[in-house]
Amino acid sequence: MFSELVIPHRTIMTPGPVEANPVALKAMSSRILGQFDPAFLTIMDNVKEMIKLPFGTTNKEAFAIDGTSRSGLEASLIALIEPGDKVLIPAYGRFAYLLGEIAERAKAEIMYLEKDWTATFDQQVVIDAIDEFQPKIVAMIHGETANGQMQQIDKIGQHCRNNDVFFVVDMVATYGGVPLHVDEWCVDIAIGGTQKCLSVPAGMSLVTYNDRVEAVLNSRYQKELGLSKDDRNDNHISSNYLDLSQLQRYWSSERINHHTEATSMVYALHEGLRSIINEGLENVYARHALNDKAIIAGIQAMGLGFYGDLSTKMPTVTPVMIPDGVGDGEAVRELLLNQFGVEIASSFGDLKGKLWRIGNMGYSSRHENVLHVLTALEGALTYYGAPIKQGEAVKAALVIYENN
Amino acid sequence: MFSELVIPHRTIMTPGPVEANPVALKAMSSRILGQFDPAFLTIMDNVKEMIKLPFGTTNKEAFAIDGTSRSGLEASLIALIEPGDKVLIPAYGRFAYLLGEIAERAKAEIMYLEKDWTATFDQQVVIDAIDEFQPKIVAMIHGETANGQMQQIDKIGQHCRNNDVFFVVDMVATYGGVPLHVDEWCVDIAIGGTQKCLSVPAGMSLVTYNDRVEAVLNSRYQKELGLSKDDRNDNHISSNYLDLSQLQRYWSSERINHHTEATSMVYALHEGLRSIINEGLENVYARHALNDKAIIAGIQAMGLGFYGDLSTKMPTVTPVMIPDGVGDGEAVRELLLNQFGVEIASSFGDLKGKLWRIGNMGYSSRHENVLHVLTALEGALTYYGAPIKQGEAVKAALVIYENN
Repeated sequence: MFSELVIPHRTIMTPGPVEANPVALKAMSSRILGQFDPAFLTIMDNVKEMIKLPFGTTNKEAFAIDGTSRSGLEASLIALIEPGDKVLIPAYGRFAYLLGEIAERAKAEIMYLEKDWTATFDQQVVIDAIDEFQPKIVAMIHGETANGQMQQIDKIGQHCRNNDVFFVVDMVATYGGVPLHVDEWCVDIAIGGTQKCLSVPAGMSLVTYNDRVEAVLNSRYQKELGLSKDDRNDNHISSNYLDLSQLQRYWSSERINHHTEATSMVYALHEGLRSIINEGLENVYARHALNDKAIIAGIQAMGLGFYGDLSTKMPTVTPVMIPDGVGDGEAVRELLLNQFGVEIASSFGDLKGKLWRIGNMGYSSRHENVLHVLTALEGALTYYGAPIKQGEAVKAALVIYENN
Repeated sequence: MFSELVIPHRTIMTPGPVEANPVALKAMSSRILGQFDPAFLTIMDNVKEMIKLPFGTTNKEAFAIDGTSRSGLEASLIALIEPGDKVLIPAYGRFAYLLGEIAERAKAEIMYLEKDWTATFDQQVVIDAIDEFQPKIVAMIHGETANGQMQQIDKIGQHCRNNDVFFVVDMVATYGGVPLHVDEWCVDIAIGGTQKCLSVPAGMSLVTYNDRVEAVLNSRYQKELGLSKDDRNDNHISSNYLDLSQLQRYWSSERINHHTEATSMVYALHEGLRSIINEGLENVYARHALNDKAIIAGIQAMGLGFYGDLSTKMPTVTPVMIPDGVGDGEAVRELLLNQFGVEIASSFGDLKGKLWRIGNMGYSSRHENVLHVLTALEGALTYYGAPIKQGEAVKAALVIYENN
């Protein structure tokens, strides 16, 4: 009745999920260990330490949540928000509204600072809004995959710290692909993803936070009923599954039982992190930057345009304007997938049908993938008769590679 | 700095996580597909249908949540609970209080129906409590791993249905190991786990629900901000990540973007489900029952006692009284793990130090594992000088196997 898994070969050049690192995939086929097996606890401890490195932090706390990236966003926001708390959300793209969706459900009073999606905020604009609104929390996106923009946050973070405001930053799309400096930027909680630049399959979220946040968590902690009838706390966090105060104690040497850790995902995380640490994070970032230059050069040489300000573009996503003559671009995407085995992404909301998004993340960020997506795109656009320059894109990319 | 993964060989005879089915592990090392890749959508559709079979349901809705088992419990309870709703929780073991912990955070008014943990409820006792308390929801555990007891629920379910009460049942420890009849038992939402009798690694929760629940979900649905500014709903579910009304639309042909599906876990789920369906669910249940008989015979022959009523014991967990002379039993467990590579479990709360729990689940439910755990336990107890009968356990188990 049900047939075997059929998994076609794909070159995935989207902003995630991207091709997984083969060492991470291989690790997933390893045997299971019990969640309190000393051998597994050692693996968890190593993972904790490795998670910190791409975040650029010496925080005591860093661990994985068994849920996709947005589970980390929700866990972080509900850890801090109490009903009626003021949350400022500067929005230069779609994912800011996901933060809003989560904060709204936590009954926060939300102020959006909105702008067009073609560029990021001047940090002073956000700082002024903080002074005006006086929020308890500022929540924002570091790299916005919907439009490919990346926000500078160092001054915003410093201003938050100076004013005792919590600064929560979604680094899902930049973790492992772009240098991050959580401590230096005064980020109180940062959230990373696995299925993007880290190239570990989706299913986990990474989080790190400092002692300012830990103090809040300690004040809201309650030990789970069923383990203890004491330790009740009227101010507990609204979720059990996403309760950072409990998760922290599961990942710490206290080892207080919470969920059953997702063994195979932790194996993959261990190997994915170890792989980029061994490559050298600076080398990893340089590889992403170089491939980004090649993609930009190739797209430009083809005569296509970009969405938004290139000077603030994330190196891990390139938003390409869909040219005339190919409608909403979906036929091109289908041809790429079905004939070339290449996947690129569309976008969300108002941007859907206006731009494609080409990812450049993690294990997918390789010369051959960049060249393959450029040739495939040129072939598909030529097939559909779009007005592009032929024979230039690959040459432009190769010039970048051969001169670096 | 960080060394390779070190994963020792283990025979895992705990109530989960257990040894994963090798076909599921192998599937996890397959390449990633994009979450909206048609090839992946086909896999998701097949998984939906397969999930229903061990639940014994023809419900339209059945899917996986990207989180460990308790994420499914929380998603199910918060789907139904609004602040002040009355929830009846009959508790014959530790995990009932996890349901309480979750319901408490959803601001339910909770009534626990409590008893000693040595046996399950007479169904009439629960029915009387329903009549007295008049709850909106009855939430209970089908198979309680803390004490190994399994509750009959058919009459309770029928009574709930007759009185328009929602019946939520945690089948995490029985899914795939024991015949389940969600429809016949009038269960409105059932939750299954992956890392137990299904022998797929931890990290996903399985859920199925009927149209009574779907009507509630439809009344609470809101489309995510960032995808649409309309569709706001004052009565939305408290979590975004665990919002069944959104998850349903992601798993349905609507394919409304929510999280990034955990590709590799879905692959494992597909193959784990396909494996037991191909084996034949009746054969799977018979295998568990036979191995349970062998474990019981072996433990009895060794002269050890059981905790609780054997007539209501789950076939997938056996609680064994820790004999005199070995203290709280932890030294025995350590010897089993470090010298025999065998893992058995301790228990929780008041039962910790009084009993061990031997699991008999999924891929771990094999003759050689049962024989190995019996020989190892006999060896460890002999080493520590506990008063047991030697040389009888394996023979008793073999008598069961050779005569069946």
